[in-house]
Parts: sequence; C-alpha cells; structure tokens
Amino acid sequence: MERPARARDAGLACGGLPPGALNSIADVPGVRVGHRTLAHGSIRTGVTAIVPHGGNIYRRKPVAAVHVLNGFGKSAGLVQVEELGAIETPILLTNTLSVGTCCTALVRHAVAHNPDIGRETATVNPVVFECNDGYLNDIQALAVTEEDARAALLEASSHVEAGSVGAGCGMSTFGFKGGIGTSSRRLSLTGQSFHLGVLVLSNFGRSGDLRLPDGRVVAPATADAGENAPEKGSIIVVAATDVPLSDRQLKRIIRRSSVGLARLGSFWGHGSGDIALGFTTANTLSHDEKAALVNHRMLNENRIDLLFEAMADATQEAVLDALVAAGSMTGRDGHRRPSLLDVLTSLPPLETSS
Amino acid sequence: MERPARARDAGLACGGLPPGALNSIADVPGVRVGHRTLAHGSIRTGVTAIVPHGGNIYRRKPVAAVHVLNGFGKSAGLVQVEELGAIETPILLTNTLSVGTCCTALVRHAVAHNPDIGRETATVNPVVFECNDGYLNDIQALAVTEEDARAALLEASSHVEAGSVGAGCGMSTFGFKGGIGTSSRRLSLTGQSFHLGVLVLSNFGRSGDLRLPDGRVVAPATADAGENAPEKGSIIVVAATDVPLSDRQLKRIIRRSSVGLARLGSFWGHGSGDIALGFTTANTLSHDEKAALVNHRMLNENRIDLLFEAMADATQEAVLDALVAAGSMTGRDGHRRPSLLDVLTSLPPLETSS
Amino acid sequence: MERPARARDAGLACGGLPPGALNSIADVPGVRVGHRTLAHGSIRTGVTAIVPHGGNIYRRKPVAAVHVLNGFGKSAGLVQVEELGAIETPILLTNTLSVGTCCTALVRHAVAHNPDIGRETATVNPVVFECNDGYLNDIQALAVTEEDARAALLEASSHVEAGSVGAGCGMSTFGFKGGIGTSSRRLSLTGQSFHLGVLVLSNFGRSGDLRLPDGRVVAPATADAGENAPEKGSIIVVAATDVPLSDRQLKRIIRRSSVGLARLGSFWGHGSGDIALGFTTANTLSHDEKAALVNHRMLNENRIDLLFEAMADATQEAVLDALVAAGSMTGRDGHRRPSLLDVLTSLPPLETSS
Amino acid sequence: MERPARARDAGLACGGLPPGALNSIADVPGVRVGHRTLAHGSIRTGVTAIVPHGGNIYRRKPVAAVHVLNGFGKSAGLVQVEELGAIETPILLTNTLSVGTCCTALVRHAVAHNPDIGRETATVNPVVFECNDGYLNDIQALAVTEEDARAALLEASSHVEAGSVGAGCGMSTFGFKGGIGTSSRRLSLTGQSFHLGVLVLSNFGRSGDLRLPDGRVVAPATADAGENAPEKGSIIVVAATDVPLSDRQLKRIIRRSSVGLARLGSFWGHGSGDIALGFTTANTLSHDEKAALVNHRMLNENRIDLLFEAMADATQEAVLDALVAAGSMTGRDGHRRPSLLDVLTSLPPLETSS
Repeated sequence: MERPARARDAGLACGGLPPGALNSIADVPGVRVGHRTLAHGSIRTGVTAIVPHGGNIYRRKPVAAVHVLNGFGKSAGLVQVEELGAIETPILLTNTLSVGTCCTALVRHAVAHNPDIGRETATVNPVVFECNDGYLNDIQALAVTEEDARAALLEASSHVEAGSVGAGCGMSTFGFKGGIGTSSRRLSLTGQSFHLGVLVLSNFGRSGDLRLPDGRVVAPATADAGENAPEKGSIIVVAATDVPLSDRQLKRIIRRSSVGLARLGSFWGHGSGDIALGFTTANTLSHDEKAALVNHRMLNENRIDLLFEAMADATQEAVLDALVAAGSMTGRDGHRRPSLLDVLTSLPPLETSS
Repeated sequence: MERPARARDAGLACGGLPPGALNSIADVPGVRVGHRTLAHGSIRTGVTAIVPHGGNIYRRKPVAAVHVLNGFGKSAGLVQVEELGAIETPILLTNTLSVGTCCTALVRHAVAHNPDIGRETATVNPVVFECNDGYLNDIQALAVTEEDARAALLEASSHVEAGSVGAGCGMSTFGFKGGIGTSSRRLSLTGQSFHLGVLVLSNFGRSGDLRLPDGRVVAPATADAGENAPEKGSIIVVAATDVPLSDRQLKRIIRRSSVGLARLGSFWGHGSGDIALGFTTANTLSHDEKAALVNHRMLNENRIDLLFEAMADATQEAVLDALVAAGSMTGRDGHRRPSLLDVLTSLPPLETSS
Repeated sequence: MERPARARDAGLACGGLPPGALNSIADVPGVRVGHRTLAHGSIRTGVTAIVPHGGNIYRRKPVAAVHVLNGFGKSAGLVQVEELGAIETPILLTNTLSVGTCCTALVRHAVAHNPDIGRETATVNPVVFECNDGYLNDIQALAVTEEDARAALLEASSHVEAGSVGAGCGMSTFGFKGGIGTSSRRLSLTGQSFHLGVLVLSNFGRSGDLRLPDGRVVAPATADAGENAPEKGSIIVVAATDVPLSDRQLKRIIRRSSVGLARLGSFWGHGSGDIALGFTTANTLSHDEKAALVNHRMLNENRIDLLFEAMADATQEAVLDALVAAGSMTGRDGHRRPSLLDVLTSLPPLETSS
Repeated sequence: MERPARARDAGLACGGLPPGALNSIADVPGVRVGHRTLAHGSIRTGVTAIVPHGGNIYRRKPVAAVHVLNGFGKSAGLVQVEELGAIETPILLTNTLSVGTCCTALVRHAVAHNPDIGRETATVNPVVFECNDGYLNDIQALAVTEEDARAALLEASSHVEAGSVGAGCGMSTFGFKGGIGTSSRRLSLTGQSFHLGVLVLSNFGRSGDLRLPDGRVVAPATADAGENAPEKGSIIVVAATDVPLSDRQLKRIIRRSSVGLARLGSFWGHGSGDIALGFTTANTLSHDEKAALVNHRMLNENRIDLLFEAMADATQEAVLDALVAAGSMTGRDGHRRPSLLDVLTSLPPLETSS
C-alpha cells in the first residue's frame, strides 16, 4: 500500500462538511504558503510564511482577530491585532527563540515595499508565531536567519506542503512527529461558495493522549526519552476565509479551534502556548483610506454555527494532516519521534458488534 | 442672578468641539430618556430609562459595546453585549439593590412586545446599570418596583431632565449632590452632521478631589459625615451616536469616558464601579434577518480621534451637568449633600496675572 | 437490571483520576447544594443553590474566578468577580427569565445576615446563573419566586441530588432530558488529599452530537419537535476546590471545563451561553480585614496540569451524570425529552476486533 | 538660575504623597536601570534596560501584570505575562522597529545565564516595549544592535538618568522633546516603608494639549513641521514596587497610570500605543520550585486606593520629569523638538485673585 499523503487519505477525515478542492488553507482565493526548512547536523527548524492576498498587505489590511487559548507562548504582534482588528504583514511561523529575527525580517520586508513606513506614515506590526522545537532541534543555535524568513515569503504559493517542512521541521505532537498540517471546508451561503481554511503548526499533546476521530487512542510504540514529561509544546492555528466577517465574528469562530484540539485528546496543558489567528480576505482596511465612512459586509450571526463547525473540524483534521504527512525523525542528541503512520498501519480496525 | 440650569450656563463647558442643539444624549435622533423619581421619607432613589430608538429594540438591535473601567459593580447584561456586540432592550439605571427588579421589568416589557420570546425564539438580555445611593437613600428598603421601571420607560422623551431625578435622585459626586447629567458633541464627517451624546449616572469621587475645567479644585464648604470615607460610589456612562461604527470601534470610543473622569479629579477608586456602554443607531441587527450576509457602514478608523475627543469632553461635561443641575439634598438619617452651585457662586474667579 | 443512578454506575466514567467519596461537588468540605423544584401544569423549572462554606459568605469571601466560553447568556454578578477575584454570596442557578428575582432574593438574604450592607458598609454582589428551559417549561410565566430561592438556600446539604431537580427541572441536553449533574476528583498534593468538585446545569448540545467516553455517538430514538433547531441552550459549570489557588490559577483551571464539553460532542454553538465559575475554600478574603498585608497559599503552577485534567474529566462526567439521573419528561404543550438511559440500554456494546 | 534637572525642581510635583529618596524607580530596592544611547548622523535612538532584582530573573520570576490602554503598539512578551502573572527577563525599551533585535538579545542573555533553556527546561519570554521615534530618528536604519541591548543591560545601576537617553533619545511628547522620566512614591503600610516607582518612555500627546499640574496649558513656542499631525507616538509605563501584591492587584494598580496621562491632557489618541507593565519584588516564583504549595503575601484590597493614587501621581510626574530632563534636539532631516524648559521659564505664574 502506498503511504497516504494526507489525513483524509489515511481515513482520518473529521466531521461532515465537505472539504475544499485542495483541502488546504489555499482554498481561500489568494492565500499562499511558503516554507524554508533547515535540517542539518542538530538543526531541525525553519520558517513558514502565510501570505493573505496577492496585493500589498500593509496597504490593504485584512480584517483579523486573535484568540489566546493558553498564553504560555512568545508570539509577537497580537496586541495590535486585538486593538485594531486587522493584520498588516504576512504571518510567519518559526521556533520560539527565532521570533525576534522573524520580526525584523517582516519589518524589512514591509519597509522595502512601503518606503513611507516610519517616515511619512506609521510603523508596522509584524505578526510572528512560534512553537518550541527544542526536543529535536538545537534551539539554542538560533539557526533561523532573516534570509530564511525572506526565502519562505518568496516561495509562497497555493501549493501547501505539510509535515516536517518550514517551521514544522522539528515539531512533535502527542509523542509523534508533528509539524505543518492543513485542511479546509467549503461553505455554501446565499448560493455562493466560500471557504474556511486552516493551517496548523502542531507541537502539542502528551504522548498517549491522542484520540483519532473514531475514538481510538493511539500512542507511540516505543517510549522515547522525555515522553512522560509534561507538555512543553504549543499549537498555532491560522485560519483564513473569504466569508465576509467582522473582527468580533472572526474571534468567535477561531475560538472553536480549541474544540478540535480537545477532540484530539488534549486538555490544553499548562506548558502549551495555544494561539489562533484568523483573517478574512473579504473585508480589508485601506491604509490610505480617504473616505470618512466605509462599507463592510458581515455574516448574519444566526448562520455562524456553520463556521463554528467548520473551524472545529478543519482544526482537528489539520493536526491529523500534520501527523500523517510527517515521517519519523531523529534530531539533536539522538532524540527521535516516530511517525503516526508507523503505528496507524498496524492498528486493528474499530468495529461495532452487530 | 438666576441659578444656571446646565453646566455650560455655569461656565463649565469642556473642550473645543461644539455641542448639539440640546447638548444632551437626545441630540442623537431617536434617543429618548425617561425618569421615575422616588423621594419620600428616607427614600431617595428611582429609575432612569434610555430608549435607543423608536422601534422594537428586540427586533432591531443597536450595535453596542461595554467598557468596564473598574468592575466593583453589579450591573447586569454585560456578558452578552461583549459577546454579540449589540443590545436588545432599553437601558435602565437604578440603585444597586434594585437591579434584579429592573431586570424582571425589562423581561416583562420585552415579552409584552415580543410574545415569541422564550417560546419560538430566544430569550432576552436585560441591560441594567446601578450606583449605590445608600448615603442619602434607605437602599435596604428596595423601594423600586417593576411598576416604577415601567413608568420610566413610558415617560421617555427627547427632553432630558438632569440632576436629582430618576436613578440620580439619591446620588453623590465628589462630596456634592450628584445624579443625572448629559452632554453631546456635534461631529462633521463627509459634510454630514452626526452626534455623540452622553448621559451619566454620577455617584463617584472623593470629597476634595473635584477639579473644574479651569483647574480649580473645589470641595464642599462644610464637612458632611462620611465624607472622608473612601469612594463607595460608581459612575455609569451611556453613550449614543448616529455615527456608523463597529462594536470594536464603539468599545475604543467609550473607553475614553475614563479620560473625562480623570480630568475631573478621580483616580478611579477601588470601591467605584465605573462602567460605560455605547450604542450606535446607524447599525442595527435584525432579529429576524433572513439574508446570509448583511451590510454595515463603519468609520474610517483614521478619523476616530474626533470621536475619542468628543467622548472625553462630553463625559466630563455630563458629570458637571449633573452637579450643576442637582440642588442640595437631605436624605435618610439627616445625611446631607450640598450643591456644587452653593460653593461655585462664592468661588473667586481664576485669573492669570499679566 | 436496576436503573443506574449516576453516570459512573452506567459505565460512563471519564478519565483516569479517582473520584471523591461522593463523586460530587460536596466532596469539597463545607460545600452544600439545595434545590427547589417547580413542576406543575406547564411549569418545569426551579432554583439550585450552591453554598461555598458554612460561615457568613459576605464576611469571608471565597477567592473565585469566572470564564465565559460563549457569552450568549444573561448571568449576573460576573463583572465584580472578574475585578475582585472573589464571591460574596451563595451561587444560585435558575431559568433565564428568573435571574432578576433570584438576584433580589440573594440581596435580601445577604442583608438579613449583614444588616450593615448599604448603610455602614458596601453593597453586595449576587451571583446568579441561568439556562433557558423554554422548551419544556412555560418560561414566560416567570414562575420562580424569591421564596423559591430562599427555599433552595435553606435546604442546602452535602447530599447532592441530580437530574430534573432545582434549576435542572426543565433542561435539555443533546436532545435528551438534561438538568443537574455533579462529579469530583480526588487530588494528592504534598501527601495531603484535596478535591475538585463540579456541578453543572446542563442544557446544551444539538440532538445527534452526543459522544460517549468510548466514542459512541448517541441520538434520541425518535425525533422530537424542534430537535433540528440550532442550540438555544447553555451550560453552567460551577467548580469548587479546597486546593489553595489564586484567582488567576482558578481562571485557568475552569477554562478547561470547555475541554469536557468538546469531548461530549459540542462545538460551543452560537446560541449557547456557556459560563464557568470556580471558587476555592482554601483562600478567603475577610470583609473586615484590619491587617494591611495578608497571607495566601497558592499552587506551584508547575503542578497545575493535575487540576486541568481533573476539571476536564469532572465536567465531562458531570454532564453525563445529569443525563443518567434525569428521567424522560413531558412538559409544556406536550414537548417531550427522552432519557439517555432509554437509548443507552439498547445500544450495542463497543468492541475492538482482536 | 540653574536649569532644573527634575520635574520636581521645576515646580511640577504631582499629588500629595511623598516621593522616595531618589524619586525614581530605583527607590524600590534591587531595581536598576541602564541606557545605551545612539546619537550620530540622523540616528537618535537607543535601548533602556530595567532589571527587576539582583538575582537570576529567569530562576526567580517577579509577579507581574500588563495593562494595554491602547493596543496600537508592537511590544513583545505580553501574552505570557497575562497568562502566568510573571516576568522572567529584564525589560527592554527601544524604538518600534528594533523590538525583534532586542528580543533576540534577551534570549541570548537568558540562555547565557541559564544553559538549560530550550534543552532541559522551557524556553524564555523576552519582554520588550517600544515607541516610534521616527520623527527625530531615521528609524528605517534599524540602528540598534544586540550589542547595544547588552550594553544597556550591563550598565544598569540604581542611578537612573532621564531625558534624551537610552530608548528616550529620539522621543517626543506634546510637541516637546520627550524621553525617559521617572518618579516614585513612599508608602507606609503596617508601620513599614514601601515604594512604588515608575519609569516612562514618553512619546505621546498632541502639540498644544499638555496641561501642567496647576492647570496651565503649554504649547511649543514655534510650530514644528508635522506638529498638527495626529498622534503617532506611544507611552510605555513600567512600575516597580516592593509591596506584596497579586498579579490581579498589580493589574488594577497599573491601570491607574492612564489617570496620569489624562491629567497631562491626553485623550489616549488612536495612534498611540499606550501600555503599562508592573512587577513586585516582594513575590517571586521560583522556576525550580519543588513544593506543591507556596506562600504569597498580598495587600488587603481595602487599602489599594493608596497605590492607585501613587500610580496616578508618579506616572504624571514621570512624564513631566522626561520633559524637564530633555533638552531641545534636532534630528533627521532637520526635524526639531524644543525643550519644555524653554517655554516654561517664560510662562507667567498662575495666580488666584484674592
């Protein structure tokens, strides 16, 4: 049998709503993802870039919101998103100790495209998220450079690679190899088709707690060192949509990412910095707006359950997608994470007696 | 000299923006205010109703936001406003121990106008704010009845009375007699005229801390019993506007009510439950909305400083308006609050030497 | 076979931590619960009281915290708990439209025991939670009286009844009859035994979404009217513990109640006002404290995962407890909710093929 | 007359509480401040370091809190402080675009002193605050290096320089030259002496809005280019104390910094990222705590008004301290900010007619 590439190929689809054509965050028109992977010696890390649309992000700021499920994390840029309900740079994901470097890279990127920043106009708010890949990666090496961040931004496309790529290179999930995963749901509103897409940087969960959609609990076959230690990981959830939403509505929706995490067996451990960010490409704020009043479309809130369900399902599936896409890996000091697939293929199927 | 009726008549105008024609919350088209005053024996209390528009509030919910400056308070209904960004009843103000009664009155009022509540449709979220008038009023008597709340709703009009009326009957401010005050600012956007109006239930501030707009510090002439005690008061600020705003923008704006309070000499004392609510009549949510997507207008956020300034100025002036409108009062157990005007008229004018 | 009385008797235990001796919130020493049930004609409602300790609650305020998972709710008293980190009354649960009446009842109860309230000392912050029982109960009747609230407070004991009692009388959960449920976990810290206990007022979840701990999805056998409607319910989770905690730690812990809800199959629907409150009896604030500095004990935060897990497990089991304890019920207009047990006993067991 | 060095020397004392011996944040025992100033060519910027105590900050984490008054800012590290109520690095202040570099510097500093970070133990949360000095400084040059941050940390002492030093080098306030300012208040509790100290990075306020403690409004004598532009500045307020406090109490206290800002004439403009952080040296969390339960002392909340007042007064005076200490400056492209003292000495005194 061929090794499945995606969670859905491995029989791990979540929920009843249909996925988009790519079953990825790039089902939302305009959204692109790029990776820069660093894997040499004891380095297992990288950068992942999520670009919200094809234009100048600083000039046309997508409406956005953040939700902090557990704030044991070091992400940057959240305060301004909370205040103004918008992002103004692409989003970078990386390891915990490289947040500063990625912030500076985003600043230089924004200044390069907007020479008035800090001179004739305001400054810029870089948004950078992180997880701690220190189990497999020599995180103290601070291996990520500004050049790596630029490379991730440059190679962004609508083809989203998953698994041990980009920021996901050295991540772990429920004792297995984790990393980048993605999923989407197609939504029908007013006869039109919309999408909600999710990308996760998955690095959370205690070994032994993972629960598959059918209820089976799955643990790594062999005990790796450090497995019984409490969670020191994190998960970052980035959601994109082309449904017109207000920032308050977005905040309510991305909060449901936590439902997906709970279904997977997590109780949102103390040491896990779990943060979600969502943006919509359907409402953008012009940096150079001249009109005093602007028009926005938003969802009739009575319909929001559809997006809640999509968010919970897509988050759950995106994590499984990371687990399925990531092969086993040996990192610094011989630390090793098996692949979920190694265990999954030897699992007995679940049956209900008739 | 005739006793001035309003803060502005007494030379206590705040800031440089022009007031509306009424200099009251009713300058916002459709907004009406009603009072029910209870003053007999040792009772000095009442109810004030603010009605956002002339239609069915439950069916057409004004976009709204709350800001809790200091949460030492017992107001009701804030959780849902925070979640959904809208109100669905008129707003009632009363004394602290009568919040329950006013909630029930609002429930009955909403059910009477919407017989499907709790049967075919959802329930209703009554919004009730309070201050503690226990210094002048026998608050333990729980004198306010549902009938009083209904009376305040019924008599609501665009003529806003200030001073010791409605919920303001027994309130105190900086050692003086406080109560209801109001003020507004006229705003020009896109060649059109808009308004921001404020109504306060003013019951905060330590005796001796009041600072007038010109910098003079004013204290009651004679020490009343209990004056040196720490703040046990509160202030409620309700802002209305016809500027199209999102709930997030409203929240940012009403937060600036606290600027007005600080200018007046308050440091937002521990025991003072200071809460602001704002709503806009320019964006309403239809309870029976059928469309999946709806249009809203909102302010170009680059223009929001105009509303910040209006909010700070109008709050400051509304408190002074309450102080000017309220005559001295003797309440339960001989407790007495002098009027600011008694002191103000004997104050030497402030001069800058030339 | 005898009808099981508790979730655990029905094979629905959750998680690996041991329950307390009573497997109820009353395993926390001093905590008592009382119910007043109203079931006649088309009335199916009531009041439930949770009394935190045997002393004067106003004089010795338990450290407390609230977490609003979804703020589509009308509970009272949360603003002050958030600001001051303590409660000062017993906690009442009731139906949505009776919150006002229960607030007034708590005010009178506090004044009766503390005649200085509103005179020589501050006022009092009643804490009342609610769910909408309008499917089975004629909620417009406002059947709950202050006398009912007093009765619930009076009959409070350490014997906690579950199911269709007190505020739980008319509640629904995942299309089944819901109501009051409870569970606890025993925790070992420093060689001492502590408890975390949970009581839920369970009225949430779409019919067809309920997932049992073993992964089985369970739906009512026959479609009741209104079952396909979106959630209009809510769930209230009250947690008590004798572990010494700060209010911030409590807030982090009770947030994990949402994990339990997600495991049960909920995605925290739009219309469901889901709110948690937690208190510890190990740290209380004296209303009459004379010392300038006071001592508190708190948990070493590195150990908090134990409480996170207990909270998630006990919440999940408390909801199942409500479902198991509640028999089927027919309420207003012939509306009917079946009992989970009716379906459960006819379910095929879950087996893993060998 | 000699040029006054401090606000108090210039007759700009605020409030009635006595200052500490140094009237600086270093009146709190153990707190030290260091600056690295960069002023050459078109560069006017730098780094300021605040070191909470003499030990290893990562090993002994001061209890801390943040308050975001207006989140239009790019500061780093706030999410974790909010979740865990503690800081674990010194605090760095710098210009907006150099936050990333300072984060990385703090990471390397922490790793150097704690080689187990990211290997055997958790990662580290760098706390960096910023204002936009782009009017006087060529902020696009990203002139600050990791070496500059290290230098600021290294030279930290209890002698606190104010004015155009460190991060304050290129800052502006109400159209005048701003920068670093500090002030403290001595507090008597239980017969013991405690301190609350404040340090500000002051870069906020519209030209023409500055109000002195005596009520006079002061504007720069000559209009500088860009003066009528809306606020693009910010203010960072760091408060230190040796009063034993919980993180919730700290949060309530530092919120009162905004009172000081309002008294100075600010209405907390849209573009001004105003953020406060407070920490207490009296309660620290041991990174390596073995005990399951720990003891903390905290303030009897009934006494907290004393700290509210100290916070408001010391913030107001610290801003004036920055204004008095900073001489006039010409920066990039001939942009110039006059000194407050230039105007102050020519002001007529304020007199009340007798």
